[in-house]
Amino acid sequence: MQIAVVLFDRFTALDAVGPYETLGRLPGARTVFVAEHAGPVRTDTGHMAIVADRTLDEVRDPDIVVVPGGPGQTPQMENAVLLDWLRAADATSTWTTSVCTGSLLLAAAGLLEGRRATSHWLALDHLRRFGAEPTGERVVTDGKYVTAAGVSSGIDMGLTLLGRIAGDEHAQSVQLLTEYDPQPPYDAGSPLKAPAHLVEEFRSKSRFTPR
Amino acid sequence: MQIAVVLFDRFTALDAVGPYETLGRLPGARTVFVAEHAGPVRTDTGHMAIVADRTLDEVRDPDIVVVPGGPGQTPQMENAVLLDWLRAADATSTWTTSVCTGSLLLAAAGLLEGRRATSHWLALDHLRRFGAEPTGERVVTDGKYVTAAGVSSGIDMGLTLLGRIAGDEHAQSVQLLTEYDPQPPYDAGSPLKAPAHLVEEFRSKSRFTPR
Repeated sequence: MQIAVVLFDRFTALDAVGPYETLGRLPGARTVFVAEHAGPVRTDTGHMAIVADRTLDEVRDPDIVVVPGGPGQTPQMENAVLLDWLRAADATSTWTTSVCTGSLLLAAAGLLEGRRATSHWLALDHLRRFGAEPTGERVVTDGKYVTAAGVSSGIDMGLTLLGRIAGDEHAQSVQLLTEYDPQPPYDAGSPLKAPAHLVEEFRSKSRFTPR
Repeated sequence: MQIAVVLFDRFTALDAVGPYETLGRLPGARTVFVAEHAGPVRTDTGHMAIVADRTLDEVRDPDIVVVPGGPGQTPQMENAVLLDWLRAADATSTWTTSVCTGSLLLAAAGLLEGRRATSHWLALDHLRRFGAEPTGERVVTDGKYVTAAGVSSGIDMGLTLLGRIAGDEHAQSVQLLTEYDPQPPYDAGSPLKAPAHLVEEFRSKSRFTPR
């Protein structure tokens, strides 16, 4: 089984690494990081690069597609090479997934029409433009499409899908080995829980505005 | 302010990326990924590589040191180049931190003697060999040393230290933007919570045996 994690300039690292570290522990699976061009792909901060080991062309029919988000998603909304690849990969995939604004790329490729889906909380409403039905849940499964909310939610998505494919016990083993027993020092991880003035501040200057 | 994240062959990706994605959002900070040799460094699965943009030699006095763990930590316990660098960097650092078995590298460098510290649950007892006092807490601060438990705990560590340095509100903003509102599908993330037979199975075949 092949899991393709799609990279593009200015993606958000944890969006990609959360599913890699969890779903990637699927027995017998091989994860491959892919991008339009092979080589290092810089994250949104510019301070980190993950290597794309294969080009999109070299990975034609992955069993699972994982699309991260990040500020770099916006220009990719008009990248025909990536959108064509997503449509072609989706035609034969078993699961097509996203984290954060990665769902806007799936949506722009026409894959989420009529589907329930989620995204980063700042980008959620944009899903409607592409015929998807946004929901505030952290992980949303609709048919073979599994979308996750912002950044860190890819860990929950990865464990959820891992359990679905390999069974609860395997997913629990991965949770135990990654010691995923979250104890955030604050309870500010969603717009419903964070201080209202912070939510308002980020809404007013949202950088997640797809063209 | 400079944050150096140390890479070595077969590190665990999320150990490094958790702090990068949270602590790395410290205002005015620049994160740099460093390794003995510059270039791609492979993770424990072999399926992913993060680029070390600088050699250890090129980054002599980071303000914050972050040391991840992973199966590759074991051979590093005898790598004098790395241990010497850790001691030298620690001599001028403001904070010296680790995730997972990264704390065993700090301990092997002699930096945790007499300190309270944590590590991956399977490796916790090994801290004693180096004069550290293991604790089962997820994030442990003792002076300028901040150690985190297994893999995913680096996110909690990063937010904790971010709040300490930049204030609660900035850390809450980062938690909100990374949508860190964990909802794991299982409650199996610590040896106290996971099914006992899984804990026993991993203890019996533990791969975290430092030489």
